Amino acid sequence: MGQEIERKFLVANEDWQNAVQSSARLQQGYLSTSAKATVRIRIFDDKRAVLTLKGPATGLVRAEFEYEVPLEDARALMQMADPNTVEKRRHRVPHGNHVWEVDVFEGLHDGLVIAEVEMETAEDEVVLPTWLGREVTADDRYANASLSRNPGIPPEM
Amino acid sequence: MGQEIERKFLVANEDWQNAVQSSARLQQGYLSTSAKATVRIRIFDDKRAVLTLKGPATGLVRAEFEYEVPLEDARALMQMADPNTVEKRRHRVPHGNHVWEVDVFEGLHDGLVIAEVEMETAEDEVVLPTWLGREVTADDRYANASLSRNPGIPPEM
Repeated sequence: MGQEIERKFLVANEDWQNAVQSSARLQQGYLSTSAKATVRIRIFDDKRAVLTLKGPATGLVRAEFEYEVPLEDARALMQMADPNTVEKRRHRVPHGNHVWEVDVFEGLHDGLVIAEVEMETAEDEVVLPTWLGREVTADDRYANASLSRNPGIPPEM
Repeated sequence: MGQEIERKFLVANEDWQNAVQSSARLQQGYLSTSAKATVRIRIFDDKRAVLTLKGPATGLVRAEFEYEVPLEDARALMQMADPNTVEKRRHRVPHGNHVWEVDVFEGLHDGLVIAEVEMETAEDEVVLPTWLGREVTADDRYANASLSRNPGIPPEM
């Protein structure tokens, strides 16, 4: 059992690329996106797979449960998931005391770039890099579960 | 990854009680009951917990994925599930070459008794015990996911 506490931003430019520590290819599909629970299957670099259940969000905080599962299971679960799987390359970018995850989307959401930071507590102070754009933490259109239902990049408001 | 191939019956009398091999108390809640996937958390005897994902049924056959999870996670997931959790005592009853599972429901479905048998293949020959009632394999009202949405015993047609 865990908690997910995160903030999420659009990205203003490519300056983050100079600080990339490591990268992985992620493919993810959704088996449930109900108000009660989000159930996600994610495959990393076609090698390793994690099943994640998330509860409803309360502000920045969300219950999160993660279980490593066999790759063969993950491939079968991906077939059962919403057809619009989310594909992206995730780059880890250290900044201040946190490691940012910069997701460069591919396939149906090609062109979209989102930066996320996971915090220990909702009060954690985060040093914001200069390459960030608008914060979209509370904008549900940028939730990956929403993206899986809606191909394309959400239009800026 | 696995497959669930099962037949399900009502129970006509209590003759099965003479052949019980072992019993356990099951509590189960549903995090998703969509057409795409059923996601169930189940706690055995308040000691051990299993997370199960099932795909859509094709005849008797259904894709099934089971993962043992920490009891603490299971309790939190049970809180996130549909409020009408299903509670029952499951008795294992060997008969012929199969072991039947006789579920005696408690709580919201008190009075309901269902016998299930899991088969290796859909063509498996099953010796039906004399204590069985009507077959309800194809009657969705007796799916535990349906029961979790509808307290009470489905009326006989």
